[in-house]
Amino acid sequence: MLRLSPLTAHERLVKTDALKMAFAGAESNAAVSLAILGHEAYFVTCLPSNPLGDAAINSLREFGVDTRHILREGKRIGTYYIEYGASIRPTRVIYDRENSAIAQVKPGSLHWEAILQGKDWLNFTGITPALSASCAQECLSAAKTARQLGVKVSFDLNYRRTLWSPVEARNVITQLLPYINVLFANAGSANDVFGIETGQPHSWSAHLNSTRQAAQALADLAHFDLIALTVRDHLSASDNGWAGMLYDKNTFFESRQYQFELVERLGGGDSFMAGVLHGLGSGWEHPRTIEFATAASALKHTIPGDLNLLTEAEIAEVAGGDLSGKVKR
Amino acid sequence: MLRLSPLTAHERLVKTDALKMAFAGAESNAAVSLAILGHEAYFVTCLPSNPLGDAAINSLREFGVDTRHILREGKRIGTYYIEYGASIRPTRVIYDRENSAIAQVKPGSLHWEAILQGKDWLNFTGITPALSASCAQECLSAAKTARQLGVKVSFDLNYRRTLWSPVEARNVITQLLPYINVLFANAGSANDVFGIETGQPHSWSAHLNSTRQAAQALADLAHFDLIALTVRDHLSASDNGWAGMLYDKNTFFESRQYQFELVERLGGGDSFMAGVLHGLGSGWEHPRTIEFATAASALKHTIPGDLNLLTEAEIAEVAGGDLSGKVKR
Amino acid sequence: MLRLSPLTAHERLVKTDALKMAFAGAESNAAVSLAILGHEAYFVTCLPSNPLGDAAINSLREFGVDTRHILREGKRIGTYYIEYGASIRPTRVIYDRENSAIAQVKPGSLHWEAILQGKDWLNFTGITPALSASCAQECLSAAKTARQLGVKVSFDLNYRRTLWSPVEARNVITQLLPYINVLFANAGSANDVFGIETGQPHSWSAHLNSTRQAAQALADLAHFDLIALTVRDHLSASDNGWAGMLYDKNTFFESRQYQFELVERLGGGDSFMAGVLHGLGSGWEHPRTIEFATAASALKHTIPGDLNLLTEAEIAEVAGGDLSGKVKR
Amino acid sequence: MLRLSPLTAHERLVKTDALKMAFAGAESNAAVSLAILGHEAYFVTCLPSNPLGDAAINSLREFGVDTRHILREGKRIGTYYIEYGASIRPTRVIYDRENSAIAQVKPGSLHWEAILQGKDWLNFTGITPALSASCAQECLSAAKTARQLGVKVSFDLNYRRTLWSPVEARNVITQLLPYINVLFANAGSANDVFGIETGQPHSWSAHLNSTRQAAQALADLAHFDLIALTVRDHLSASDNGWAGMLYDKNTFFESRQYQFELVERLGGGDSFMAGVLHGLGSGWEHPRTIEFATAASALKHTIPGDLNLLTEAEIAEVAGGDLSGKVKR
Amino acid sequence: MLRLSPLTAHERLVKTDALKMAFAGAESNAAVSLAILGHEAYFVTCLPSNPLGDAAINSLREFGVDTRHILREGKRIGTYYIEYGASIRPTRVIYDRENSAIAQVKPGSLHWEAILQGKDWLNFTGITPALSASCAQECLSAAKTARQLGVKVSFDLNYRRTLWSPVEARNVITQLLPYINVLFANAGSANDVFGIETGQPHSWSAHLNSTRQAAQALADLAHFDLIALTVRDHLSASDNGWAGMLYDKNTFFESRQYQFELVERLGGGDSFMAGVLHGLGSGWEHPRTIEFATAASALKHTIPGDLNLLTEAEIAEVAGGDLSGKVKR
Amino acid sequence: MLRLSPLTAHERLVKTDALKMAFAGAESNAAVSLAILGHEAYFVTCLPSNPLGDAAINSLREFGVDTRHILREGKRIGTYYIEYGASIRPTRVIYDRENSAIAQVKPGSLHWEAILQGKDWLNFTGITPALSASCAQECLSAAKTARQLGVKVSFDLNYRRTLWSPVEARNVITQLLPYINVLFANAGSANDVFGIETGQPHSWSAHLNSTRQAAQALADLAHFDLIALTVRDHLSASDNGWAGMLYDKNTFFESRQYQFELVERLGGGDSFMAGVLHGLGSGWEHPRTIEFATAASALKHTIPGDLNLLTEAEIAEVAGGDLSGKVKR
Repeated sequence: MLRLSPLTAHERLVKTDALKMAFAGAESNAAVSLAILGHEAYFVTCLPSNPLGDAAINSLREFGVDTRHILREGKRIGTYYIEYGASIRPTRVIYDRENSAIAQVKPGSLHWEAILQGKDWLNFTGITPALSASCAQECLSAAKTARQLGVKVSFDLNYRRTLWSPVEARNVITQLLPYINVLFANAGSANDVFGIETGQPHSWSAHLNSTRQAAQALADLAHFDLIALTVRDHLSASDNGWAGMLYDKNTFFESRQYQFELVERLGGGDSFMAGVLHGLGSGWEHPRTIEFATAASALKHTIPGDLNLLTEAEIAEVAGGDLSGKVKR
Repeated sequence: MLRLSPLTAHERLVKTDALKMAFAGAESNAAVSLAILGHEAYFVTCLPSNPLGDAAINSLREFGVDTRHILREGKRIGTYYIEYGASIRPTRVIYDRENSAIAQVKPGSLHWEAILQGKDWLNFTGITPALSASCAQECLSAAKTARQLGVKVSFDLNYRRTLWSPVEARNVITQLLPYINVLFANAGSANDVFGIETGQPHSWSAHLNSTRQAAQALADLAHFDLIALTVRDHLSASDNGWAGMLYDKNTFFESRQYQFELVERLGGGDSFMAGVLHGLGSGWEHPRTIEFATAASALKHTIPGDLNLLTEAEIAEVAGGDLSGKVKR
Repeated sequence: MLRLSPLTAHERLVKTDALKMAFAGAESNAAVSLAILGHEAYFVTCLPSNPLGDAAINSLREFGVDTRHILREGKRIGTYYIEYGASIRPTRVIYDRENSAIAQVKPGSLHWEAILQGKDWLNFTGITPALSASCAQECLSAAKTARQLGVKVSFDLNYRRTLWSPVEARNVITQLLPYINVLFANAGSANDVFGIETGQPHSWSAHLNSTRQAAQALADLAHFDLIALTVRDHLSASDNGWAGMLYDKNTFFESRQYQFELVERLGGGDSFMAGVLHGLGSGWEHPRTIEFATAASALKHTIPGDLNLLTEAEIAEVAGGDLSGKVKR
Repeated sequence: MLRLSPLTAHERLVKTDALKMAFAGAESNAAVSLAILGHEAYFVTCLPSNPLGDAAINSLREFGVDTRHILREGKRIGTYYIEYGASIRPTRVIYDRENSAIAQVKPGSLHWEAILQGKDWLNFTGITPALSASCAQECLSAAKTARQLGVKVSFDLNYRRTLWSPVEARNVITQLLPYINVLFANAGSANDVFGIETGQPHSWSAHLNSTRQAAQALADLAHFDLIALTVRDHLSASDNGWAGMLYDKNTFFESRQYQFELVERLGGGDSFMAGVLHGLGSGWEHPRTIEFATAASALKHTIPGDLNLLTEAEIAEVAGGDLSGKVKR
Repeated sequence: MLRLSPLTAHERLVKTDALKMAFAGAESNAAVSLAILGHEAYFVTCLPSNPLGDAAINSLREFGVDTRHILREGKRIGTYYIEYGASIRPTRVIYDRENSAIAQVKPGSLHWEAILQGKDWLNFTGITPALSASCAQECLSAAKTARQLGVKVSFDLNYRRTLWSPVEARNVITQLLPYINVLFANAGSANDVFGIETGQPHSWSAHLNSTRQAAQALADLAHFDLIALTVRDHLSASDNGWAGMLYDKNTFFESRQYQFELVERLGGGDSFMAGVLHGLGSGWEHPRTIEFATAASALKHTIPGDLNLLTEAEIAEVAGGDLSGKVKR
Repeated sequence: MLRLSPLTAHERLVKTDALKMAFAGAESNAAVSLAILGHEAYFVTCLPSNPLGDAAINSLREFGVDTRHILREGKRIGTYYIEYGASIRPTRVIYDRENSAIAQVKPGSLHWEAILQGKDWLNFTGITPALSASCAQECLSAAKTARQLGVKVSFDLNYRRTLWSPVEARNVITQLLPYINVLFANAGSANDVFGIETGQPHSWSAHLNSTRQAAQALADLAHFDLIALTVRDHLSASDNGWAGMLYDKNTFFESRQYQFELVERLGGGDSFMAGVLHGLGSGWEHPRTIEFATAASALKHTIPGDLNLLTEAEIAEVAGGDLSGKVKR
């Protein structure tokens, strides 16, 4: 998607006269992070044949994502506007993505068997099937094809209330669940989509408990290999508590707890997703994976824009416990 | 409409990462110019109830346009992207305005009788009826109501091939013609809409002749009080020849000829429209009106953005022949 | 006033080479906020007939303030420079406002009876009478006229030591007090103008006590309907504690306590003033009014520039207790 | 003076929200150019003790001008706003310099004997005596002291109609003439101050003739060693013809003719002044001096801002005839 | 190379405080253009393992250039600073590229046989062998390997006097000539490297004659398939005349003549090189190739930065004669 | 050195396309601060004769540093890139300073006797002797000459691991120690250079103890008059604890403790150095000196860039205990 936000820090949309232009999206954010971490990452979508579509593709190639499977058709690129909050003022997102090229993708125009042949992993989120019925159909088709080809499937619930109702989400996602190996979620999205209520936590330990309960309830929904969850405590629009958790139906693997001042709120969950996939793809033990993924996503909150531009070495440094922020000369 | 263009001069859309954000449109450009020239100008449209709609309204109020009749409903604001050319490289415009709030306006939701009561003039262009069938219907309804109330009507052909075909344009505009007092056009739009062919002029005098022929042919289409036309010679993307012409079915009133280096290509015709309406509204003789309107629009080409921010005194100075560009201290 | 500040965050004036240009002032800030909150707000001042005066007017019209009563005469617009501090470095303001158009307004040139006829409320602050003897005279004349016409009068002490001495301020303001319905103040301005000493508070509860004492002492000075006060704890140039208080001579109505990181220090008191006037104008109970006004001014500290660009719905959300800063999609 | 201009090219003041901040003035521009050309240049003025005064001084020291004789007192720095024109739209300057520190300088507070002792040259322009009576007195005192000490005196007529009337200018400048060795002027300022009418030239050769007549008429006014004049043909706000001329009462020494596209209109005359003083100070023959000074000022028109940042080698290259603009690698 | 230039148009390096950061180089510019034109383009160099090296690679991948063969070793990236001129002021380039990673490449570390296997074309310029003895050796090795593998070789003389003397250039390039199929040159570089004197042309036809003579003299130096030359007339730093020419030892194929206002001087020759290679690679007739390549490079002069961001369709439009610069909607 | 950093706050180098350009260095930072504090400060180095060298000199003169002793020779200016971190992400510095003009200074080309004659103080840091053998030799020569002339010598250990190994540093610095009057250090640099281990402090009091131990161990190395040390607790990349300490071999003089949010991490130690030298040069008691120097350096962390742009009055205000950050009007 095209992502536009006031160029001046903290400025409101109603007052700005210049916008930062970038491209983002849950799955593409994760693809970029995986490419930077050294993986062969492909991004599949549909974009119009105009300079905005070209620029979107370039923004992915720049970081090494392979864009050869992107369809070029349709009329417009989905667009959203971000107005950054601060302190007690929330960040606001305005979507203008109806009738985007991907939402209007014709069923069958993405050749999943050819795309997934010889690949290891298919990763997507709940945003894509929410865009349109044909998108939902393509997601289902992709997930099924992946399973048939022995390609692992991961999926992040990522509920967006402006795209569909909880009921619609549950109906579509429930069809996807049987094909999913790794499920990404948090206490909020578990509640939004599956009505898993775990209370309104007012302390960090309550947040952790609530997330553990959500994990257990989610685990009953299908035969997942692993559930990966994030825990966010909204101290303010500028300060957050943060942790990550893996649950393999037996054990919880939990990261250290972070508290940080945010430079950027968006893209945090996507970088966590990439971090977990990196650990799994590298054959790491779960404790190492969850520390890495949580450090990756904690660090991501210090970088402007949706993309996690950190290298493995930089993330590993923080995952290893160096949180002093000392100058590296 | 929301108007986005690369913030850095001459940059291509595919390479930029910052956009200038502004709001523009043929009719609103003219309204702003008329407000600056001292008129009570109202702008009527439909905008979504979000910060982008608010910002669009603010951009009009800023220059004194009255926005009380703007409907606030619909989902999105029409958007376009401008990539400025230079020298031999053309300026390119990418539209993303399908399903805009105004295009989806419900017939009858604009109460023309209330809006036009006590006003002197209704001004609109061929872009608005081209947006959708309901827009075309609203335009017709507005024009009819104006006539009934004794409000003068002006209309600029302003043909946009991305919005409708020549045949569609001709069908709709032909229905509007009987209600129009003052028609704005140029040789190109006369040809696009009504197939009035006047050759491919390769000299300035040929351009003038071609425009005069177009004027005469247009005059046969309906009972206009006046036809106002602009003459543009595209020397390059950066240099243009320019003049204005009024035709009252008897006489041609022609301005001096301008040649200028462009700072901005867009909004030139709209500022001419405002200049002519200012002269007519002020009861000036045609020679004074055409010199003023042409000076206004020539000067407009030196100002970034769609809006003509010049005062009457500044325009009159150039209309009076002071083209030296000497510093005013 | 013309407001100039280094374009780059935290830059010092002595090192910058680009300035953000805006227009501000205690009364105009409040007028803009009231216009955004849905009121018919007029701003009355005197501005020179040059592009800077035009731009000042446009900056008010942009947000819906009615500027028809602004006189256009005089030579210059009052100007000030802001250098933003951070953490332990204070924000500094350099004034260049001697001989401004408003300071040199000729007594009697503002026709208060015509201006105030049919209006509900006159609002001004201690800055205006401080500008010059003729300004003081105009303020007194406006306040008297308002009383005669049954227009409510509100006034913020807003003492500026660079404009006048405490003795001068007390003399002039004392003449104004009999006409004032609602007095805005804080412990500091009460002390500056009326020598009401309430100690050097070193805790939040001491700050509250000190403000309550000031309120009581102020209440003895004249027959106010209401005194509205803000409480600010300067934790650093970047962090503040904040609350609001209403005192009707019987009861203190106090808001929740806020602590926030500042994006912008200026305009906080003005947004509180607008928030209180909005509540009073809407006929709200005092507890609702003070929560709203304090939330409005707390939020204002997160927006760059003097203007409070928040809508009623956004303020009400925080006034209702949602301080998490969670992303609104 | 503080110099503020819209940060975005060609933007109007009424629409901009960011200003370029710089410091300039006829005499200080010349001082900077002379310092860059290798001379020991002192600048004498009066500036307020605030960050704006500090920044003005720093802007001079940056290029090697000695600022030790600058008085620090008074309340404000003179300020002006520039709105750049383009093509047929003129550049506009708005002054806000009444009551500046230098205009309010107390007679006698500048110790000219100490300042001029051991120096070679005193250079000033008609802008300074125009600021106030005390400035005029200081100029006269400086010129007299210079003569007594054997310091050469140069003076540029530089008439500004917003500062004084022709009659006032003539009265003051006539008193200065006996002390002046080198007079800088052009046909326009000769006419403005001394009523020397030389026609309205409509061709380049008419411009040259007109300038030669002005030189001869000026030469009759006092015993100058040399008169140095510039010739400007305003083709548009963006294109100018340009030449320089020296007249020693016997012979005209005229430079080659330049035609260039302007990047910046202001500071052209000041760089010419510095170029002539450089040639005279270096003991060059007049033909070499006039080619150098004219090349310097022609090149100046290609540099943003008032300052001529060119080195002697760069100017000499163009003075020597290399006008191709070929890339220097 | 890292390319740094003042962010503000026309600003001098000595005065700027912000730099535009980009990456460029003759061969990489051509590679980017070829990738945009649809070719599989590889770029081979050596870059340090730091964020600047990463950014250089990203800037190539962004436009689809394959960077897999880039060595990551060495200490620094070659850097240059550009100060844009205007009108009569020349553009200046300051190089800081000694000891760059590519200059210090260890002979044999680039495996040319593996790199060139299965490729169609090897393209390089005289800048690369000039960087160091090991670079010269690698160039020779690459050219020889290409010949052995049946890969076509093209080479642009591109003489840089700051890198080597004419004698050094001639010695090294003479060794390369036997392996070259297509030679790129112009009258200037032919003279610089091989002492081919063709006069100081003062008219356009003299420029053409001079270029033709250079082509004929170059043709005698080795068995080239084709010589491709550009003709540039430096009207000023802002305006150039421009044409292209192919010479196959029998016939001259010459493009139409262009005259344009420059937005950017650098990268013009590189875009011509890409245009010719595109035509040759597409099997076009020479007249079509030379019109396309010259249109491509003419258009390139209107785009900021070194890269030619134009698509085949956009170039073909101008190559076909549409030079009006009319807005494309 | 030339200092380049992404223009947009928090942006990564790999993603930026605009750089802030400035000049900095430990010794020049201190010189600028001393000049602003009212001292006659000279800076001695070697810079290339190109616009970057000129700009470096201008950046010093701007604040009143005398640059007459700067040699102009050599090929390049040392360069470094800063990528600002935030919260848990560290700030990173990339050096590109091999073969800089100063590193290649020819021994004997700086005439220390002439330079130091009549001066009070010589100040340098461990960075300069680390640059090259000839730099080390020049430092030794300068220190010896200073001693002979009765000029006081101060030196900051300032260890940079990218420039030399601890062993190399110890060898060179040990030769310098006998000539040093005032040694600047902190626990880290004492450990790096002299292997003085004082533990890994995890509390503020442990930090103080560790620093005191380092001071005592350093005091045994030579006959210093005074050791001045800073204490930094890295709470995060954005928040630091901070204090200063003087040790005269008998007594520790310790400042109040600061905790602040950082705007800029670099230049903190250099501003402390200037603050101490200011106190010593002003003949202040040690308690006043250490409070002033620590306040200076604490405040420095709130200013963008390396330079401490604060005046004595502003520093004294905070040194006196006013940490509220209240607006100064």
